[in-house]
Amino acid sequence: MNAIGTHLLMELRVCDEALLDDVRHIENLMIGAADEAGGTVLARSFHKFEPRGVTGIVAIAESHLCIHTWPEHRYAAVDIFTCGTSFKPHEAAKLIIASLRCGKPSITEIQRGPLSEAKATAV
Amino acid sequence: MNAIGTHLLMELRVCDEALLDDVRHIENLMIGAADEAGGTVLARSFHKFEPRGVTGIVAIAESHLCIHTWPEHRYAAVDIFTCGTSFKPHEAAKLIIASLRCGKPSITEIQRGPLSEAKATAV
Repeated sequence: MNAIGTHLLMELRVCDEALLDDVRHIENLMIGAADEAGGTVLARSFHKFEPRGVTGIVAIAESHLCIHTWPEHRYAAVDIFTCGTSFKPHEAAKLIIASLRCGKPSITEIQRGPLSEAKATAV
Repeated sequence: MNAIGTHLLMELRVCDEALLDDVRHIENLMIGAADEAGGTVLARSFHKFEPRGVTGIVAIAESHLCIHTWPEHRYAAVDIFTCGTSFKPHEAAKLIIASLRCGKPSITEIQRGPLSEAKATAV
């Protein structure tokens, strides 16, 4: 694996409330984003909470994607961590933002991995 | 779910090289850390790469724990994201650091969630 990784921490606000509570939609968008961005999906787990909210995790060969939603706040926290050169994290991020109809996305990019300096940059 | 979450980004250096490449040890320590800290494990996935390295993800009711290791660099990247009051992320962090015999841990704590200000603090 590459020794420097990219971790995108995404705070997605003003999203579509119904989509944030639709576990099937969330699963399709996260797997779709991983595939489109060149990732090899190893495993996945998606869970619908009551009364609302979804948690999803996807293990990819280049690391992981996670999502946690708060439909009542129209907010989702998303993480995309990758250390491969084939996976394009920013492509995955764009697809997720569009799929949730997010009106106010913010992304912080952190370099991680054994040869990184773990610097955080607002994207 | 609580509207403010804690995300610990852990850069673990000078760890035990053999333990970092032992997928069974990594799985036991991550599940054990989640249990000890009060988490309810919903799903798990652990993968051993060739020639070396392990990736693991654990979905918990309060969010997720992830680990990616680089045994040849004696390094692991760990994430603990929780939004529940019952789960104690710092307890989980301590157990993971001890279990990997990490000599140089650094932790950055970020508040996330719909009501957070997404501030990062070195712990």
